[in-house]
Amino acid sequence: MNKGLLIVFSGPSGCGKGTILKQFLARNEDVRVSVSATTRAPREGEQEGVSYFFKTKEEFEELVRSGGMLEHATYVGNSYGTPRASVEAWREEGYHVVLEIEVQGALQVKRNCPDALLVFVLPPSFEELERRLTGRGTEEPQVVARRLAMAKEELESAGQYDYILVNDVVEEAVADLETIVNAEQMKTPHMQDFLKGLCEV
Amino acid sequence: MNKGLLIVFSGPSGCGKGTILKQFLARNEDVRVSVSATTRAPREGEQEGVSYFFKTKEEFEELVRSGGMLEHATYVGNSYGTPRASVEAWREEGYHVVLEIEVQGALQVKRNCPDALLVFVLPPSFEELERRLTGRGTEEPQVVARRLAMAKEELESAGQYDYILVNDVVEEAVADLETIVNAEQMKTPHMQDFLKGLCEV
Repeated sequence: MNKGLLIVFSGPSGCGKGTILKQFLARNEDVRVSVSATTRAPREGEQEGVSYFFKTKEEFEELVRSGGMLEHATYVGNSYGTPRASVEAWREEGYHVVLEIEVQGALQVKRNCPDALLVFVLPPSFEELERRLTGRGTEEPQVVARRLAMAKEELESAGQYDYILVNDVVEEAVADLETIVNAEQMKTPHMQDFLKGLCEV
Repeated sequence: MNKGLLIVFSGPSGCGKGTILKQFLARNEDVRVSVSATTRAPREGEQEGVSYFFKTKEEFEELVRSGGMLEHATYVGNSYGTPRASVEAWREEGYHVVLEIEVQGALQVKRNCPDALLVFVLPPSFEELERRLTGRGTEEPQVVARRLAMAKEELESAGQYDYILVNDVVEEAVADLETIVNAEQMKTPHMQDFLKGLCEV
């Protein structure tokens, strides 16, 4: 059993990363989505360890202090983060673990876990992103404009990612993500058990 | 047009790397095999720039001195090497260039061209390698034994390669090599033109 990969997934709003992930998960039983920890109170129907790991402020801070968080941030007074232990436990069982987070969190993960794969999802063109954001029809023009401005800013960070996934046709983007996962597993560090087995003969 | 990849292909005798490369080339028009330079005299039918680049000893040594060789070695009095210029010219045209060379040469290439991809081909098991070498029926037992001993020695270097390609079924190994090539092209350094295009809007 080889250790699973840690895949960090980012991209501007409207790039389609949610749809890609959904199909990727449906097609690959060996992939799991990381569960975040949070200090905010559980809402109705939310389950511990499924929706979130619910923590007190003290528990959360202790986890950060002891290096137990791969990344963390505070949002409207509540803290959110990715606990290292649950991610590592799944990876040791052979599951690939996916984190869908924004750029600052992704770069924190890379610092705390250098073998994480950072994948940045992009639209085929800026016009297409604009069309997708407008086409939803649910957003005010000024919301669309703000999202586009944010997208341009996030693009500046794409160069710090390992892979760029262009989402033109969703099925192809999912296949491309599978290509990345399959290639990564042929990298020498992931083949150590096989190499050791061969050499021991 | 993105720059092509430089793929260095090694593996023990009997691992099937020749067969994999042949199918890989047949299926991918954007791949070329590097042409070596040599100081040995042309044999009948050998063409300059196709079979080899034929060089005088002085020309060859001058190329080595000026950093014009990605790797080189001497074999029974003749020098052989991979000229950087021809490899780079093809890569600039967008072709992926394959070098099929042994371990020492591969590691020289990696030092001289850090973005080269080193791919090590391995049999699924040592027993299978023995079976393939014996099964040819053309070799004396002591030749087979020597090849197996050499294979064990080469295996020690596999850890220095970027990727390990296990050749169980040839068609699958070819597909795996294509997976590696496709994933590498999604790496951020190869997506700079695309990123630049998006950002300029």
